[in-house]
Amino acid sequence: MTDFSAWMQACQTRMERVLADCLPAAAIAPQRLHEAMRYAALGGGKRVRPLLAFAAGEVTGADPERVQHAAAAVELIHVYSLVHDDMPAMDDDALRRGKPTVHIEFDEATALLVGDALQSLAFDLLASHVLADDAATQLKMVQMLAQASGSRGMAGGQAIDLASVGKPLEPAELEFMHIHKTGALIRAAVLLGAHCGAPTGTTAGSLDRYAKCIGLAFQVVDDILDAEASTATLGKTAGKDAARNKPTYVSLLGAARARELAQELRADAHAALDTLAGPTARLRQLADFVIERSY
Amino acid sequence: MTDFSAWMQACQTRMERVLADCLPAAAIAPQRLHEAMRYAALGGGKRVRPLLAFAAGEVTGADPERVQHAAAAVELIHVYSLVHDDMPAMDDDALRRGKPTVHIEFDEATALLVGDALQSLAFDLLASHVLADDAATQLKMVQMLAQASGSRGMAGGQAIDLASVGKPLEPAELEFMHIHKTGALIRAAVLLGAHCGAPTGTTAGSLDRYAKCIGLAFQVVDDILDAEASTATLGKTAGKDAARNKPTYVSLLGAARARELAQELRADAHAALDTLAGPTARLRQLADFVIERSY
Repeated sequence: MTDFSAWMQACQTRMERVLADCLPAAAIAPQRLHEAMRYAALGGGKRVRPLLAFAAGEVTGADPERVQHAAAAVELIHVYSLVHDDMPAMDDDALRRGKPTVHIEFDEATALLVGDALQSLAFDLLASHVLADDAATQLKMVQMLAQASGSRGMAGGQAIDLASVGKPLEPAELEFMHIHKTGALIRAAVLLGAHCGAPTGTTAGSLDRYAKCIGLAFQVVDDILDAEASTATLGKTAGKDAARNKPTYVSLLGAARARELAQELRADAHAALDTLAGPTARLRQLADFVIERSY
Repeated sequence: MTDFSAWMQACQTRMERVLADCLPAAAIAPQRLHEAMRYAALGGGKRVRPLLAFAAGEVTGADPERVQHAAAAVELIHVYSLVHDDMPAMDDDALRRGKPTVHIEFDEATALLVGDALQSLAFDLLASHVLADDAATQLKMVQMLAQASGSRGMAGGQAIDLASVGKPLEPAELEFMHIHKTGALIRAAVLLGAHCGAPTGTTAGSLDRYAKCIGLAFQVVDDILDAEASTATLGKTAGKDAARNKPTYVSLLGAARARELAQELRADAHAALDTLAGPTARLRQLADFVIERSY
């Protein structure tokens, strides 16, 4: 095992433990809702956003005991969005992280409430632990996560995505959608991790540029995998973008150019890190991981 | 017009203006989502929670310029819960505040995203304005709202409500459900309004007792109105609890005893206010309003 994969596994294990601790126990009423929240959030996922938060925290010297709660908050927002996305009114998907989706395993009403309650829990986490040097910074972190999640962030990206099914998009429009749908929360993961330490203005700016590249690269690679990998490998239904005539980087640019674009974004991400003073090895490796991953 | 109804109208007008200002304009992308968010949140509702926040703020000498954003945040949580509740997977209702529900006027996917984005916006508001004397208090307000909204608050109450359809409940179980479903957010409205000023520990405790009584009274009266008023008066479908065999205070206790209970809760709410030093006239009048309302 390389040093990087050991680090990644340690972060993932830590994230699983923190999430298991902060989610209400399945024995607490309402039991079925809590059971479904745990089903949705535990035991799966690459935890890319938490990994980015931990790695960005290393740059600013943040205490991992702080970063872990910021990372968990971002991950809970991500998980809630998956639960709602998979519902029949949205993507209508039966498989996620290799398991039946929440509305299949439980029911639609429960899936709706699971998503709603996971979002509340994310903000609860951000407000209930000491995460930054001062409360004013921590309030700013609440604001960052709220804006990244809302109608001008992730939820807005979903709305644009829905509106674009079967519609020809220009590459710039596709980018606009993904900057919202995936990019905003990835950016929040990086910035929240950094704000658990003491980022200077320049640091935050460079991390922001890095996060923007990673967010887009993540989506480009997702599109390539959706077109080329199997459902078994992905743990979610493969080929569904094409089946629904959804615009993707592969359908717009072709697979070869999409692969080139991913490499360019990796280079841009690395270049953004070059300007930073703190230790950036983990962020650099994560950029490689995001581009080279096969699931 | 009495002094109280003039005050109420002024608060409602102010709330409408603040919500109109803080909701993204319908011209901003994604336009349809923003249009639907405005449709859901503007132009209707009694604004009971904002009224409670403004009245509680008077007790602690809070600046209404602060209270209005705390009040708007609570109202946005309330509105999001209505939008999700009305969806086919939950209560499947076509009418709300005298208008077609969001999933009828727009579509289900949009209704899902509207609710999600309104919740994010509520936390954005709480974090983006100066609402308290210090940032630490304001973080505590974020925590209060998050916990009131989540699985051990409002969303949890919804889950218990869903699980109780067609099931015989004891009065204590019905109360447990409503303390979560309606009570938690009403309590948050009162406490958030109070924290915009400087509540002492005793003040917060008495306000909490007041809020608990009002929360239950509100639900008892809702059950009476659902059984006895018309759809036209309510602006939402009347008689639906009985139609679905949902336990209510009326079905459990009978209409006469339910009416007595509402009066007892009003007396308890007034008694809680008797212990307070600050001006409590508005909270007192709001208790009367909640019990005597006909819609």
